[in-house]
Amino acid sequence: MARLVMKFGGTSVASIKHMENVAAKVRTEKLAGNEVVVVVSAMGDETDRLVSLAEEAQVPEVDTRRELDVLLSTGEQVSIALVAMVLSRSGLPAKSFTGAQVAIKTDGVHNRSRILEIDAERLEADLGKGIVPVVAGFQGVNESSDITTLGRGGSDTTAVALAARLKADECRIYTDVEGVFTTDPRIVETARCLERITFEEMLELASLGSKVLHTRAVELASKFHVPLRVLSSFNDSTGTLITREENITMEAPLISGIAFTKNEAKLTLLGVPDLPGIASTILGPISAANIEVDMIVQNVSADRSTDFTFTLSRQDYDQAAVILEAIAASMGAREVTGDTSIAKLSIVGVGMRSHAGVASKMFEVLAAESINIQMISTSEIAISVVIDEKYLELAARALHSEFDLAEPFA
Amino acid sequence: MARLVMKFGGTSVASIKHMENVAAKVRTEKLAGNEVVVVVSAMGDETDRLVSLAEEAQVPEVDTRRELDVLLSTGEQVSIALVAMVLSRSGLPAKSFTGAQVAIKTDGVHNRSRILEIDAERLEADLGKGIVPVVAGFQGVNESSDITTLGRGGSDTTAVALAARLKADECRIYTDVEGVFTTDPRIVETARCLERITFEEMLELASLGSKVLHTRAVELASKFHVPLRVLSSFNDSTGTLITREENITMEAPLISGIAFTKNEAKLTLLGVPDLPGIASTILGPISAANIEVDMIVQNVSADRSTDFTFTLSRQDYDQAAVILEAIAASMGAREVTGDTSIAKLSIVGVGMRSHAGVASKMFEVLAAESINIQMISTSEIAISVVIDEKYLELAARALHSEFDLAEPFA
Repeated sequence: MARLVMKFGGTSVASIKHMENVAAKVRTEKLAGNEVVVVVSAMGDETDRLVSLAEEAQVPEVDTRRELDVLLSTGEQVSIALVAMVLSRSGLPAKSFTGAQVAIKTDGVHNRSRILEIDAERLEADLGKGIVPVVAGFQGVNESSDITTLGRGGSDTTAVALAARLKADECRIYTDVEGVFTTDPRIVETARCLERITFEEMLELASLGSKVLHTRAVELASKFHVPLRVLSSFNDSTGTLITREENITMEAPLISGIAFTKNEAKLTLLGVPDLPGIASTILGPISAANIEVDMIVQNVSADRSTDFTFTLSRQDYDQAAVILEAIAASMGAREVTGDTSIAKLSIVGVGMRSHAGVASKMFEVLAAESINIQMISTSEIAISVVIDEKYLELAARALHSEFDLAEPFA
Repeated sequence: MARLVMKFGGTSVASIKHMENVAAKVRTEKLAGNEVVVVVSAMGDETDRLVSLAEEAQVPEVDTRRELDVLLSTGEQVSIALVAMVLSRSGLPAKSFTGAQVAIKTDGVHNRSRILEIDAERLEADLGKGIVPVVAGFQGVNESSDITTLGRGGSDTTAVALAARLKADECRIYTDVEGVFTTDPRIVETARCLERITFEEMLELASLGSKVLHTRAVELASKFHVPLRVLSSFNDSTGTLITREENITMEAPLISGIAFTKNEAKLTLLGVPDLPGIASTILGPISAANIEVDMIVQNVSADRSTDFTFTLSRQDYDQAAVILEAIAASMGAREVTGDTSIAKLSIVGVGMRSHAGVASKMFEVLAAESINIQMISTSEIAISVVIDEKYLELAARALHSEFDLAEPFA
């Protein structure tokens, strides 16, 4: 007997019909003798509907984030009630739980709370009776019993936290994709669904643009050693298991996947006086404007002046350019240049830790396709490059092929 | 300074625009130095939307009433969040409260709970800080922290219970009508909005078909001596104050109002052997089928057999007729007859207690219009008759005129 947490996202509970599909998946596990806890998100685009109501009711000058949480948490509450009804009528005794009822205690920051602890007593009692608890994702309560929501990736985080607390054997995230792919199958036809991947690789992929799982849920699973499986709620494939490195029994492949983001831009400050502290002088005002900076490159100085480049999300480009012009003027830099037609492409794999030459192979592949590399940044298990966005598909396909990602592991 | 509970129904919070109107009414009271607690229902037809989702997800054979409460309670939760946002942006600091947060403790019967107690500590604390608490109507929690709903008239009941617990000076029920009328203004043009009415009269009117307030809320207000005011949320009229008889300073009028229901039917069992226990023999199976019976008349027996007649809601007629045929056969009654084109009309007034002749005046008025009375039933402050429904409007207008209801009190 295994204990499973099964989390279904908005598209998987978009209608009563969809919920019957959820019930079928739960039944399969119950028939196999497993204990099941279900976690659900709000139905389809219910959250969007609630957000647009809030936008009509809120003004930026008045802090009503507490009320936004009260509002948004109803989306998941509707789902748990209906899923519990559908499970019950399918002969699977079920019981819904709001975040407050579980009780999922949070740090009390509205709209982006973190889970502090879970009092799983009620769930354990119901599991003991063969009941399937259906828990609302994305929500908890703070110490004043105010409703708090967990922000982006919140329902996945709820599922992983519950799995950790209940010592579940596996936390399954059912989505509308089959699992974690070697790269985006819409771009590279031969992209393959990975059978296994390490937490570290998944974290890199998530932070590098893969939309499958939010970084937060992966981090939490990694911290508490919760085996995490991403799989489709629309078929019976086994998806991708995200696990600790030692559980990947076969020798790790050189790289596991290729991630990319198109929505990138870069800004360069040319001819900056090369003095201590220039990085913070430049980036301080940018970050004060809540603009997130990704890659940062500063060239070695030759003539007491230097060039400073960073990448950012394309939608922040205009605002950042204005700020940078002001900075350039104040510090006597020569010029501000920018580019909004770039893309970032990364290869990720724990295998590259023990294999030299991954970077040079990557650069060779790109050079063979005459693709110019504009920026490079590396971490222990990832190498990222910035290139002209028009070469992105070409680069992804070439790398996918050269690193043998289309081939199943030997 | 007065303390007010202001309750707004679904049509009064149907949109953010409507909620601005709520905010305007709250502002008026706050500017007058009053403390305000707001109670709201679900927006417009949100409850209908949720009910139809539940109908799609539930089957009669499986008891999922607990989940229905979890589902339905989200309707009011959406309202409290949005109303609190709109109040806040109007410069009126506000805070939403679910039934669980208040905490409104109930007896735990799902879908039709009764309020046992209210822990008003949090509300008192916020009232002390000048905050407007916005409380979800219709919902509470039982001793297992399960969400429970209060059934029909639930939000009004919440408002009255809060007013009682907080010792409010007045509980105001804002609706889409102007108050309690002498009779239905759609039928009788000269119908007049009553300035004051006693709890007893309001109870009779409510149980006799007036839709303005649910019996339950009136009973509770009467029990705890909470002055209750029904008024329009769409204009500034003062509506109708429902209060104790001693607060109605002028001499009570003979009758206060005329109530009627068209959706009535009657069933008669002819030639029933006149033996002890026949009423329960007949009505037992009817009530076991969850059919509510209203008026009951049994004629005095002459030849050891009797006729037994009762009225019921028209929608239950077919089912009840089938049951009655079976009963008739088993007890050797002669015949079952029925009529689905009747109406019930009642005159209500505490004044009739001290004035003889109200009944005979009523019967005279009807006789003068050649309207045949099929059944009569009386209480201390009401007289009800069953007539052919085609005479209903004629009867209502004649009685309204003859009892001088169109005239304001002298």
